Amino acid sequence: MFERLHRYLPILDWSRTYTRDTLSNDMLAAVIVTIMLIPQSLAYAMLAGLPPEAGIYASIAPILLYAIFGTSRALAVGPVAVVSLMTAAAVGQVAEQGTMGYAAAALTLALLSGLFLLAMGLFRLGFLASFLSHPVIVGFITASGLLIAASQLRHVLGIEAHGHTLPQMLGSLAGNLGDTNIATLVIGALAMAFLFWVRKGLKPLLLSLGLRPKLADVVTKAGPVAAVLVTTLAVWAFRLDEAGVRIVGSVPQSLPPLTMPDLSFDLIEMLAVPALLISIIGFVESISVAQTFASKKRQRVDPDQELIGLGAANIGAAFTGGYPVTGGFARSVVNFDAGAETPAAGAFTAIGLAIAAVALTPLVYFLPTATLAATIIVAVLGLVDFRALARIWPYSKSDFAAQLATILLTLGFGVEVGIVAGVGLSITLHLYRTSRPHCAVIGQVPGTEHFRNTDRHCVVTSPRIHMLRVDESLYFPNARFLQDRIYADVARNRAIRHVVLQCSAVNAIDASALEALEEINHHLKDSGVTFHLSEVKGPVMDRLQRTTFVEDLTGQIYLTQYDAFEALDPGLARVALKDPRTAATCHGLQ
Amino acid sequence: MFERLHRYLPILDWSRTYTRDTLSNDMLAAVIVTIMLIPQSLAYAMLAGLPPEAGIYASIAPILLYAIFGTSRALAVGPVAVVSLMTAAAVGQVAEQGTMGYAAAALTLALLSGLFLLAMGLFRLGFLASFLSHPVIVGFITASGLLIAASQLRHVLGIEAHGHTLPQMLGSLAGNLGDTNIATLVIGALAMAFLFWVRKGLKPLLLSLGLRPKLADVVTKAGPVAAVLVTTLAVWAFRLDEAGVRIVGSVPQSLPPLTMPDLSFDLIEMLAVPALLISIIGFVESISVAQTFASKKRQRVDPDQELIGLGAANIGAAFTGGYPVTGGFARSVVNFDAGAETPAAGAFTAIGLAIAAVALTPLVYFLPTATLAATIIVAVLGLVDFRALARIWPYSKSDFAAQLATILLTLGFGVEVGIVAGVGLSITLHLYRTSRPHCAVIGQVPGTEHFRNTDRHCVVTSPRIHMLRVDESLYFPNARFLQDRIYADVARNRAIRHVVLQCSAVNAIDASALEALEEINHHLKDSGVTFHLSEVKGPVMDRLQRTTFVEDLTGQIYLTQYDAFEALDPGLARVALKDPRTAATCHGLQ
Repeated sequence: MFERLHRYLPILDWSRTYTRDTLSNDMLAAVIVTIMLIPQSLAYAMLAGLPPEAGIYASIAPILLYAIFGTSRALAVGPVAVVSLMTAAAVGQVAEQGTMGYAAAALTLALLSGLFLLAMGLFRLGFLASFLSHPVIVGFITASGLLIAASQLRHVLGIEAHGHTLPQMLGSLAGNLGDTNIATLVIGALAMAFLFWVRKGLKPLLLSLGLRPKLADVVTKAGPVAAVLVTTLAVWAFRLDEAGVRIVGSVPQSLPPLTMPDLSFDLIEMLAVPALLISIIGFVESISVAQTFASKKRQRVDPDQELIGLGAANIGAAFTGGYPVTGGFARSVVNFDAGAETPAAGAFTAIGLAIAAVALTPLVYFLPTATLAATIIVAVLGLVDFRALARIWPYSKSDFAAQLATILLTLGFGVEVGIVAGVGLSITLHLYRTSRPHCAVIGQVPGTEHFRNTDRHCVVTSPRIHMLRVDESLYFPNARFLQDRIYADVARNRAIRHVVLQCSAVNAIDASALEALEEINHHLKDSGVTFHLSEVKGPVMDRLQRTTFVEDLTGQIYLTQYDAFEALDPGLARVALKDPRTAATCHGLQ
Repeated sequence: MFERLHRYLPILDWSRTYTRDTLSNDMLAAVIVTIMLIPQSLAYAMLAGLPPEAGIYASIAPILLYAIFGTSRALAVGPVAVVSLMTAAAVGQVAEQGTMGYAAAALTLALLSGLFLLAMGLFRLGFLASFLSHPVIVGFITASGLLIAASQLRHVLGIEAHGHTLPQMLGSLAGNLGDTNIATLVIGALAMAFLFWVRKGLKPLLLSLGLRPKLADVVTKAGPVAAVLVTTLAVWAFRLDEAGVRIVGSVPQSLPPLTMPDLSFDLIEMLAVPALLISIIGFVESISVAQTFASKKRQRVDPDQELIGLGAANIGAAFTGGYPVTGGFARSVVNFDAGAETPAAGAFTAIGLAIAAVALTPLVYFLPTATLAATIIVAVLGLVDFRALARIWPYSKSDFAAQLATILLTLGFGVEVGIVAGVGLSITLHLYRTSRPHCAVIGQVPGTEHFRNTDRHCVVTSPRIHMLRVDESLYFPNARFLQDRIYADVARNRAIRHVVLQCSAVNAIDASALEALEEINHHLKDSGVTFHLSEVKGPVMDRLQRTTFVEDLTGQIYLTQYDAFEALDPGLARVALKDPRTAATCHGLQ
C-alpha cells in the first residue's frame, strides 16, 4: 500500500531528504524563474488567443500539481509555444477569439487533455507517444515554429490577420500590409533585433568582459525582461498607445480564479481529437526535456508517472482559468541553470507568480504586444531546423519523406492535419519497409559450416534445395510477401524439391505469419516440395510448439542451416565442409 | 516494349499455347459454371439490394476483362457475398433501396473501387492489403457471414426488416415477426434444410452408391440449382405468389446495358472510403483464392497484375449495369472442378450468361426470393468460424484480441467500422509489441565465448560492465523504450561504467532509433558511462557509417560480444573462457 502511494506520489521520495541548503537553492531559483516567466506567460497566452492573465494562471496551479505528481526534478510546467499554437488552432474552430466561449473552450481543452494524459498514465499507454517518429517530431516542430512566427508578425506590424495555415496567414498579412502602424513596427523590429543580438552576440561579449560564464548565462536569459522593461517605459513616456501602438492594457489583479470548464457534449466531441493530439505532443516535448535534465544528474524519469503528473497539471489548469500546459524546454533550462534542486523550486515559483498576479499586473499596462510578439518570434525561430532534412537524407529516404511531408502538410493544412499525416505516414512507411524484408538465397561457404547470400559470396548450392534467409521477424505486414516470394521461386525453378527457411533473424512469428507458414507448407506439399526451417530461436520455437504446425510440417526443423543441408544432400555438404576448393557458384560476382 | 505489353496483358502468354483439347475442356467447364452461376448471381444481387439482373450483368463484362488482364487461370470474377454486403452497407448510406439513385450509386462504387485497384496495381501498392492481418480477416469474414445470414432471414420469413448491424437487424426482425408469411417460411425452411443436407449428407450417400467422386462433387454443387428448379415449379404450379410468396418477377431480357456511373462530387466523396475498403477486402479475398489454385498447378500469380485485372473487372462492371465484383471462392471452385484450364473458360461463361440474360430470364419469374435467401444463408454460414478464436488464443493473446474486437465491432457497428477498427487495432498491437521488445542482460557462459541471458543461465558478469541484448530491430516504436531501459538500468546501478549493446538481432536502425542511440551515447557520457555496440550486422553498419554516430561514440563497436568483454575486462573474460568452473551468478535459477 505504502509502496503504491510512493509510486503515484514521488513527492514522498524527495521531501524526506529536503535540507536547508536545498531550500535556499530552490528559493533563489524560484525568484529568477518568476521574473523570466512573466513575459513568457503573457506572450504565450497571446499566441493562444487568450487574455494575458490566462498565461500566468496557467503557470501556477499546474506547477504545484506537477511538483506533487511529477518525477522530473528540473522540469518547469506551464504554457509552451507549440501547445499554445495548437490550442489556438483547436479552440479557433469552435469559438471566436476574445469571446467568453473561447476562454471556456480553452478550459475544456485543458481538462480533456489532462484526462487523456491521466488515463494514458494509469493504463500505462505512454508507448502511444512512441508512434511519433523522431523525423516527424522534428518536422512538426520546425513547421510549428514557422507558423508561430508568421502568426505573430501581425503584432509586430500592428495589423489584423487571421488563419491557421501558412498560406492563409501570409495572404491575410499581405492584404492588410497597408494598415501597418509605424510606431508599432519600430518597437517590434527594435525588440527583435535586440533579442537576436542578445541570443547571438551578448554572451561572447560578456565573457570577453570577464564575467563568469554562469552569470553571463543568466544575464543573457534576462534579455526578454529587459526588452519588456524598456519598451514598456518607452510607450508610457511617449504615450505611444495614443499613436496606435497596441498595449496589454489592464489585467485583472487576482489570484487564479476557480473556473468550471464547459462540459457540453457537442464541445467535448469537437475538442476530443485536438485534445488527444495536444496531450501526445505535449507529453513528447515534456518527456524529452525531462530526460535531458535527468541524465545530467543521473536521475530517473518514469514515463508513466510523468503522464500522471502532466495530467494533473492540465486538470489543474482547467479549473484555475488556464489552458493546456506541458513541460517546456525554455522554462526548464532557466529553472535548471538557476540552480533548482527539487520540485519545491516549482512550488516557490508558483507562489512568486501568484504574488505577481495579485500585485504586479498594473506594471504591464503599457507593455506593447509587439514586444511580446518579438520575444515569441525570436524564441521559436530557434526551433526551425531545416538542416535536419539534409542530415536525414543520406541515412534514410523514407524518414526524409516522412519529415518533408510533415513540414509541408503542417504549413499547408495546419497543425492537426500535419501531425496526424506525419504519424500515419511514419507508420505506413514502417509497415511498408517491414512488408518487404531483405531475403537472401544462401549457400554454404566452402570449407566452413557458414551459409551466405549467393549474390555476395561464392557458395555451394544444390539445384534441388532452395535455401532462403529472411532478415526480419515474420508478422502480418510481411506474411504475404514471404508466400509470394517462395511461390515465385518454386514456380520459376522446377528442379526444387526442398525449401529451407533459415530463421536466425526471426525474433517473432505472429498468427498471420504462422498461417502463412502453414499455407506455404500446404501449398509446397501440393507442388511436391518439402518445407523445412532452421535456426529457429528459443522463444519462437516455444510458441510454435503450442500449435499443430510442427507436426504438420512436411520437413524438419533443423538446429543449424548446416544440419539441414547435410541431411538433405549429405554428399555435397560434407565435401563442401572438408574441401575449401569445392566448386562454388559466384552469381553476383563476375 | 513487347515485354512490357506481356506484363500488363497476360492473355498474350496463355493464348499462344491454346489447343483444341484445351478449348473443349474450357467450353465444358463454361456450361457447368453458367448453370451454377445464375442462381448465385441473382442471390448476391438481392443481398446487395439491387435488382436481380444486376448480378448477372456483374458477371459478364468483369469475367471478360479479368480474362484479358488477370494472371490466375482458375479465378472466377463476379459478385461475392462479403462484397455484396459491403455494397449494400455503402450504397444504403447514400440512397434508398429500390430507387434509381441506388443502382446508380452502386455503379459509382464499382467505378471507384476499380480505379483504386488499378491505381494500387500501377503504383505497386499491393502491400497495402498486407495491413489486414490474418486474424482480422478471419474475424471480419465470420462476422460478415453472420450479418449476411441475418439480413436474409427476412426473405425466409417473408417480412420487412432493415439495418446494417446485428442488433438493428435482429430488432427489426423481432418487431415484424407477426407478419410472417407461412407459405414463404415453408419454402425457405425446406430449401435451407435441403441445402444443408446436400452440403453435409449427399456426397457420402452418392459415394456409397458407387458414384465417381468427381461426379459426386458436381452433383453436390448443383444443389442450389435443384432447389431453384423445384421451388420455382412449386410456386408456379400452386400459384403461391398469390398466397403472398415473394417472387423474383419479371427480369428485363437484355444484354448488359451500357451504363454511365453518377460522377457527382458529393457522391464520390461519400463513397470513396467504402470503395477503398471494398477494393482492399475484395483484393485480399481474390488473391487468397487465386494463390490456392495456382499452387495446385505450380503456377504463379502476380499480386500487382491481379490488382490491375480486378480493377479492369470493376470498371467494366461500372459501365455495364453491375456493381463491385471480385474473385470469389465458391465460383472459382466450381470453375476449377469443372476442368477450366485457361481464362478462356471465363470468357465462355460470360457468353453463356449473356445468352441466359437475353433468353432465360422469363424462367426465373416464379423463383421465390426465399429460395435465393436460403442459398445465401447456407453458403455464408460455412464462412462462420468461431473455432478460430479458440485456435488463436493459446498462440497469441494480442491476435486473439484483434480478432474478437473485429467480430464484435463488425456485428455491432457494421462492416466499415469493423474492418477499419480491426486494421487499426492490428497495427496498434503490432507497434505495441515492437515498442517493448524483449531485452536481456547477458553474461559470459563459463568456458565459452557465448553470452546468454542472466535470468536463464549461470553466467559471468562484471558489475562495471552492463551488457544488454535487444531482440528486435530498432525503430521509432521502440526507440524511446531503449532509452528508458538503459537510463533506468544505469540510474539504478551506480557501479556501471560501460554499457555494451549486443545488436545481433537488430536487422535495421531507423532515423528515430539512430537519434535515440546518439542521445543514449550523449547522456551516458554526461553520467560518466561509456557506450559500446557489438555484433552489428553488415547492412546496418553500412548505414551507420554514413553518419557521425560512429565517430561520436564514446566507446567502440566490437565484432563479437566476447571481444567487447575481453577489451573491457580482459582478466575476467579470459579466465571465464579458459575455466568452465569460473564463479558465475545464477540470478533467475535458484
